[in-house]
Amino acid sequence: MIRERITAIKSVLKDAGIDFYIVPTSDYHNSEYVNDYFKQREFLSGFTGSNGTLVISRDEVGLWTDGRYFVQAERELTGSGIVLYRMNEEGVPTIEEYLEKNMKEQQILGFDGRVVDTCFGKNLEKCLADKKISFVYDKDLVDTVWTDRPKLPVSKLWVIPEEKNGQTVEEKLTLVRGAMKKAKAAHLFISKLDDIMWLYNVRANDVECNPVALSYTFISENEAVFFVQKDALTPEAEAYFEKYHITVKDYHEVAAFLADCSLDGSVWCDCDEVSYLMYKRLSERVEIIDRRNPTTLMKAVKNATELKNIREYYLKDSVALTKFLFWMKQNAGKVEMDEYSVAMKLDSMRAKVEGFLDLSFPTISAFKENAAMMHYSATEDNKAEIAADGLYLVDSGGQYIGATTDVTRTIALGQITDEMKKHFSKVVCGMLRLADAKFLYGCTGKSVDILAREPLWECYIDYKCGTGHGIGYILNVHEAPPNIRWRYNPGTKEDILEAGMIVSDEPGVYIEGSHGIRIENILEIVNEEKNGDGQFMGFRHLTYVPIDLDAIDTRYMEPRDVERLNAYHEEVYRRLEPYFEGEEKLLLRESTRQLEY
Amino acid sequence: MIRERITAIKSVLKDAGIDFYIVPTSDYHNSEYVNDYFKQREFLSGFTGSNGTLVISRDEVGLWTDGRYFVQAERELTGSGIVLYRMNEEGVPTIEEYLEKNMKEQQILGFDGRVVDTCFGKNLEKCLADKKISFVYDKDLVDTVWTDRPKLPVSKLWVIPEEKNGQTVEEKLTLVRGAMKKAKAAHLFISKLDDIMWLYNVRANDVECNPVALSYTFISENEAVFFVQKDALTPEAEAYFEKYHITVKDYHEVAAFLADCSLDGSVWCDCDEVSYLMYKRLSERVEIIDRRNPTTLMKAVKNATELKNIREYYLKDSVALTKFLFWMKQNAGKVEMDEYSVAMKLDSMRAKVEGFLDLSFPTISAFKENAAMMHYSATEDNKAEIAADGLYLVDSGGQYIGATTDVTRTIALGQITDEMKKHFSKVVCGMLRLADAKFLYGCTGKSVDILAREPLWECYIDYKCGTGHGIGYILNVHEAPPNIRWRYNPGTKEDILEAGMIVSDEPGVYIEGSHGIRIENILEIVNEEKNGDGQFMGFRHLTYVPIDLDAIDTRYMEPRDVERLNAYHEEVYRRLEPYFEGEEKLLLRESTRQLEY
Repeated sequence: MIRERITAIKSVLKDAGIDFYIVPTSDYHNSEYVNDYFKQREFLSGFTGSNGTLVISRDEVGLWTDGRYFVQAERELTGSGIVLYRMNEEGVPTIEEYLEKNMKEQQILGFDGRVVDTCFGKNLEKCLADKKISFVYDKDLVDTVWTDRPKLPVSKLWVIPEEKNGQTVEEKLTLVRGAMKKAKAAHLFISKLDDIMWLYNVRANDVECNPVALSYTFISENEAVFFVQKDALTPEAEAYFEKYHITVKDYHEVAAFLADCSLDGSVWCDCDEVSYLMYKRLSERVEIIDRRNPTTLMKAVKNATELKNIREYYLKDSVALTKFLFWMKQNAGKVEMDEYSVAMKLDSMRAKVEGFLDLSFPTISAFKENAAMMHYSATEDNKAEIAADGLYLVDSGGQYIGATTDVTRTIALGQITDEMKKHFSKVVCGMLRLADAKFLYGCTGKSVDILAREPLWECYIDYKCGTGHGIGYILNVHEAPPNIRWRYNPGTKEDILEAGMIVSDEPGVYIEGSHGIRIENILEIVNEEKNGDGQFMGFRHLTYVPIDLDAIDTRYMEPRDVERLNAYHEEVYRRLEPYFEGEEKLLLRESTRQLEY
Repeated sequence: MIRERITAIKSVLKDAGIDFYIVPTSDYHNSEYVNDYFKQREFLSGFTGSNGTLVISRDEVGLWTDGRYFVQAERELTGSGIVLYRMNEEGVPTIEEYLEKNMKEQQILGFDGRVVDTCFGKNLEKCLADKKISFVYDKDLVDTVWTDRPKLPVSKLWVIPEEKNGQTVEEKLTLVRGAMKKAKAAHLFISKLDDIMWLYNVRANDVECNPVALSYTFISENEAVFFVQKDALTPEAEAYFEKYHITVKDYHEVAAFLADCSLDGSVWCDCDEVSYLMYKRLSERVEIIDRRNPTTLMKAVKNATELKNIREYYLKDSVALTKFLFWMKQNAGKVEMDEYSVAMKLDSMRAKVEGFLDLSFPTISAFKENAAMMHYSATEDNKAEIAADGLYLVDSGGQYIGATTDVTRTIALGQITDEMKKHFSKVVCGMLRLADAKFLYGCTGKSVDILAREPLWECYIDYKCGTGHGIGYILNVHEAPPNIRWRYNPGTKEDILEAGMIVSDEPGVYIEGSHGIRIENILEIVNEEKNGDGQFMGFRHLTYVPIDLDAIDTRYMEPRDVERLNAYHEEVYRRLEPYFEGEEKLLLRESTRQLEY
């Protein structure tokens, strides 16, 4: 079947006169999750991993993917004739290097310019300039061979109620236009979906777990044009856009609009986000101001209304997770359960919370060694049984009409080893030390990351990921800025931690084949004392879920760490107690008991 | 007198047809300390501060200086008719803005291009391009009016003995040429004095406390030309350069050489260091590769021989300082002493250490509130008496034939307040926590800075400077990289902390009008465990001087901090003990006693 598809696409390419064709894995908006409609690469190759790029030419079809997927790709590509290129392995060329080597002078390179980001496209231009390669990037050629392709997703737009906003679209547009004026940009083109949703105070459901609508927006001094699929519009939404004088146009008209609209000055667009096609349409006509969308930072700093709602829904979410964890602790080893079934149980418990809309990402439910794999996902067909003999990790969150939540807890089911307790205790120390930090305004995530990591680094252990990411408001669970990371990347812009941002704090230990531990609280960034030395800042917990004391050994903590844990648990009890009764309340009291050093 | 000088220079400018003339405060090499020969700005204005730039035109003479010097400048400029421009105050123009506003089209701007750095020069070009201003930058016009100008400093060059090097000039040149090849640079021009000294394994004494010779070097594949004043050369030095096939030319020929030498490719030169004149001479002829000198990073990573000597001389230096501090503690309040006299005493004690060459910077000796001023300097005429009733801070160091040292201790003389003890204890915690850190290879100073600062930030106190700087080997006491700082400067390159670098660790508390505390140890960066998570790194103390326990209150420390202090003191005793006898040895024992928590 794959061979047939490859034959079909090769013939289409031949007819179109295209020598090499690139099929990446992306939607038109660089979204984190890709809808089935956009799985052209999977359709053509049979490879189902989340990251992979296909390059098709007359002589060869190559698939590039990263280390997480080498084994899976090898298996899935068997018999397809597709060559696997293991990214970042020694001697393996990048796609750019491959094309530079294999393309002949004046050949033609094709790709759908809507699913290729501007940076990659410009990079290709640079690498292939010497060979005088032409680019054909305005056609989706896979579409012609993919006869049973799923439909482009379209869901109904809904408007966030005023009392949940804190800021009307009018106020936001005024701020955006102020930023445009400052940047000397006559126009602003945004393709980043969560930025657009934030700006217009609307949401939808076109991308898995991300409450966004496929859309674009083009803003000038006197007009704001919102491109969205016709079927997404409800009468309420239409009335809403009319009320705020926002012109609504069809989603599919955007490229033509950019090619034809009247432009009276340069266009601001974020080349890290905008697709190559849109970039070309604009840059052919007018000067581009390439910088981050002004909406990105505005969206990151939550307003008072948002923060009030976030605090409220994080508490409700904490209650649901705590009850689930109590159930796990009490029933593991007694009733039959597996990673998938308990995830379903948690999801349904969360779904009962007032204001629940959706999950904010697919629940990660992992037992023992599975928790050591950062991208593990249990499914109905691929799951481990859970007994009372190891560490269980659950990373989950919800979309509520007032917050997007994210929280991870790891709990001991039955006896665990001393090493596990050591790792668990160190992770807890790191999470609490960062949460307890005081820092001067001007710090970026890089300045504070080490506070979470040092208890592990002291043991010569690292977690190979960032310590924290920002989180949207009824939006994407991964939202940048802020970021809490330590690694220095020359030339990369860092973001100052601002009061009103919310950020995850999730150190971990991942021991291959043995166990995985992650404790994740979400923190609000707040101003503290201001004096002659500057504005001091700190964090406040948003997450209030007990940390499993059965997995703690205070010998691996300093007295101050134990104090911090006790203070946190005291607060957990105080806040959760109204939601608990009877035996569960006793359990809450017991789970948040004060430890002695 | 100042008025006469101004009149004289104005007449010279008129004759030369120059409308505006800039007189900065710098030598030809952007050195930290400026020799009397280069004090043109002081000569013309009477202002003696270390930072200031004069702009002279027919209508006005303006002096720009920073906040440290506003009061002093106002006083020193009285009656001179010179207008004071307070840098960074609201509404005060920068020099560029001032010139942009006041210069008329096609006027002529003059300055000595040897004392203006390339960045400033290029900036002026940019700001004044619209007005078609011409630049005259190859004349030192102050020289014509400064009849009793001191001579250009010249001291004898001496060669570092082979056994103190660890790397011959031949080996270093091979490394440098390798870097040039990689950067595709046919030539390398260096004007940074410590880089040149390091490369040729020579030293001199042309800049206060910096054991360097005024010099330049120009390196090609087959030739290395060293420009130095004729009088600096001894027969030994001449023989040495001949032995290594290094062409020696006169210092004053360099500009002519750059204008005439044969160039067969681009020239690498560090525009942050090279003067505007040299830059122009080169950039008029050939393409410039503007990046940091390859020698800068090579010099920062000390080799095994250097490290061995550094460890040895830091110990000797620690012994001298410890004995001085014991004397201070025993005699304060009993014998007459002042900040200046005790600094002289310390300097003379250090001078008796085997291998002593010079101080590495003028000793900072400050009592009580004077220690709160970061740039305080006691002199014979301006000094405070020392009694047994406050905190005394001493920051000092030596040049030895095997190390450049730097160390700060603050000690309690008599009773001090509880607040002082709190501040002192927190500073000690910060210094020791950073020294005890484990971190992954790839961290820059910014990732670890917070470890030293957090104990103070928790109390909403900051010190307004970096935590640490690199240090040369028988070279400049301030040498970058490395740097340990927290503040994020977009676009600024950071340096990874490398094994073999040495760095200061000097948190502090500065309370205006009351007291100043700084504890500074020098640390060596070392590799520790390497595993699947990466190469872990750590620090080792080079400084072994007791930390005054009379100023410690363990209530302000965590148990782990007390443990760290005890461990450090145990090591101080073990290492210093062989150098102490009798009552002093008892004192050493007492000063390094183990504290209980």
